[in-house]
Amino acid sequence: MRNCTRIYFDNAAATPLRPEVRAAMEPYWSDTFGNAGSPYAVSRAARMAIDRARTQVAALIGAHSDEIVFTSGGTESDNWALLGVALANLETRCHAIVSAIEHHAVLETATTLRELGFEVEEVGVDGNGVVQLETLDALLRPETCLVSIMTVNNETGVVQPLEAISQRTRERGIVLHSDAVQAAGKVLLDVEGSGIDIASLSAHKLGGPKGVGALWVRRGTRMRALLRGGGQERGRRAGTENVPGIVGFGAACELAELEMEANREQMCTLRERLEQGVREIEGARLNGESAPRAPHITNFSLPGNRGESMALNFDMRGFAIGTGSACASGALEPSHVLAAMGLSRAEARSSLRVSLSAQNTGAEVDEFLDVLRELVKK
Amino acid sequence: MRNCTRIYFDNAAATPLRPEVRAAMEPYWSDTFGNAGSPYAVSRAARMAIDRARTQVAALIGAHSDEIVFTSGGTESDNWALLGVALANLETRCHAIVSAIEHHAVLETATTLRELGFEVEEVGVDGNGVVQLETLDALLRPETCLVSIMTVNNETGVVQPLEAISQRTRERGIVLHSDAVQAAGKVLLDVEGSGIDIASLSAHKLGGPKGVGALWVRRGTRMRALLRGGGQERGRRAGTENVPGIVGFGAACELAELEMEANREQMCTLRERLEQGVREIEGARLNGESAPRAPHITNFSLPGNRGESMALNFDMRGFAIGTGSACASGALEPSHVLAAMGLSRAEARSSLRVSLSAQNTGAEVDEFLDVLRELVKK
Repeated sequence: MRNCTRIYFDNAAATPLRPEVRAAMEPYWSDTFGNAGSPYAVSRAARMAIDRARTQVAALIGAHSDEIVFTSGGTESDNWALLGVALANLETRCHAIVSAIEHHAVLETATTLRELGFEVEEVGVDGNGVVQLETLDALLRPETCLVSIMTVNNETGVVQPLEAISQRTRERGIVLHSDAVQAAGKVLLDVEGSGIDIASLSAHKLGGPKGVGALWVRRGTRMRALLRGGGQERGRRAGTENVPGIVGFGAACELAELEMEANREQMCTLRERLEQGVREIEGARLNGESAPRAPHITNFSLPGNRGESMALNFDMRGFAIGTGSACASGALEPSHVLAAMGLSRAEARSSLRVSLSAQNTGAEVDEFLDVLRELVKK
Repeated sequence: MRNCTRIYFDNAAATPLRPEVRAAMEPYWSDTFGNAGSPYAVSRAARMAIDRARTQVAALIGAHSDEIVFTSGGTESDNWALLGVALANLETRCHAIVSAIEHHAVLETATTLRELGFEVEEVGVDGNGVVQLETLDALLRPETCLVSIMTVNNETGVVQPLEAISQRTRERGIVLHSDAVQAAGKVLLDVEGSGIDIASLSAHKLGGPKGVGALWVRRGTRMRALLRGGGQERGRRAGTENVPGIVGFGAACELAELEMEANREQMCTLRERLEQGVREIEGARLNGESAPRAPHITNFSLPGNRGESMALNFDMRGFAIGTGSACASGALEPSHVLAAMGLSRAEARSSLRVSLSAQNTGAEVDEFLDVLRELVKK
């Protein structure tokens, strides 16, 4: 790895493009480059490649392929999910619920919904970062039209109780959206068999290219297009299809599906090794430790230390580590996720997120722990 | 070119990725792959690459680089331009004007604006496809907050009178958006010196990758983000930056700027040769012929023939040719642009759009004319 980053521990922020994925994208740059909507040979081949990718993405999450709509990434998917349901409910300006630990792409879009006249409330989490079902019950109303709760939290890896949540939304006819960006390829998903209606996906979190994502929309879900102006994606998302990107996303999903079990085991072993080392540091707290978690993320607080300063020190030693979500990096506010879990500002600010891939090694974990112990001593 | 497309005459729909652009993108797939928002080496290098691309895009259109915001393409840019101004004016639900020949990305977003409570009116064009200034004058009101008129029409290549239009919007404090997707790299743009406030751009129309575009937003323009949820693009467009795509867009703009004059001449010569051949066909009509036009597009009607059927016949002979905008392909409705110019449905349906690049040759044009004459005879 160039640029003096030797050990990459921020796989929840971005992953390198896998060589197999890059090879799959290859023919679509300047050979089969046609606009997939056009009526001639070079475009028909592009159309077929998109259809194949749609099947690959659908297979990873247990969906019908006609329910997959390609977007420019997880953020567009999250924005569209909320705005799409809102646009379909402009007449009534109904009530929506999001969890307090959602990605900012959901939380800030909730603000847009409020500006459009919708009422949006937040449901909190317990000390382990799990959405509180009793609070959700208390918030649900006859006029609630949308609930948005993520599958796997991007800062802690905590898996949310979507089965229990979807029982509640299902029986009330409420649309349930789930940001599954950190879940796809990491935990087994069966969206069709679930009670979820809409799920957001991103390619670059699982070895695919940046700039591509998808929204899974269950057949019959009442929502509207956000980006309009062309018949692409059967009228659900306008814009010339990013053919190489979509092909790459499909290839990455196929690999992720094949390797999920093996990768899970590998990442769980690495994470356990890492967390064992962290536990031995005095005062350390593993955030969300007792909750069900996806295998690739760990988050811990080291009171008395500053997360940003530790991350910078790790950077100087060739590590790539974030303090929380990459999207919030640069922001001086402590994590809203950790705050919702009851951590003080100081505790939240003393936190690091390490996110693994199956390409990481035990030796990297050991080197990380050596540096961590050294930094904490200072 | 594979897939049996030998002669590519649909450059307004998509262009192949240029080899130089592909090479520029190369390091950002799996070496400098970091999330550009993260605080470590592999990400800082990505951030620098984005900044460089921003300067390259700005240079092509005569903008300040801090006014360039990267998006997922022309459609997102158009949607955002209209929705962004609307979101900034939710209090007043003001009045907007779009031209009748806009891309569907503008026309359909105008429909969303209407659903949100805004009044949107359309200004028509004359027989040459040029926006009628007198009609615009009649539509302008004290409460007009937005006018959207494209720079170069994507079906006819006709250049719109933006200087005259912007004099009108400027003196009234109205935000003027222009879809410049077909203009960038084809005609000289100086957005800073113009009276335009917002302009849409797309990478894949000028040798760059699909899935990337930009919105130029003049400093101080009152508009809001559409995609929210992260600090990227200084809070103006959330979502992990598509680093390779953005780098490719920048490289394509730099090449387009260098070669614009030479390419213009080459395309004008080819187009004149093609149009001379078309003129000799009985009953042929060159649409927008007397208006100022960008060099790469020609559109003609051949009454008594069907555009779709001609395009299919061309496809079987190895040509890639569209009947109008690729986005509308598959739609059975005749072109709204030609209808606005006063063509009958039958005339509009007898039309073809040929769009050139500087890589096309005179021999290709001659072969095209041979096939065209043969098809018309039938």
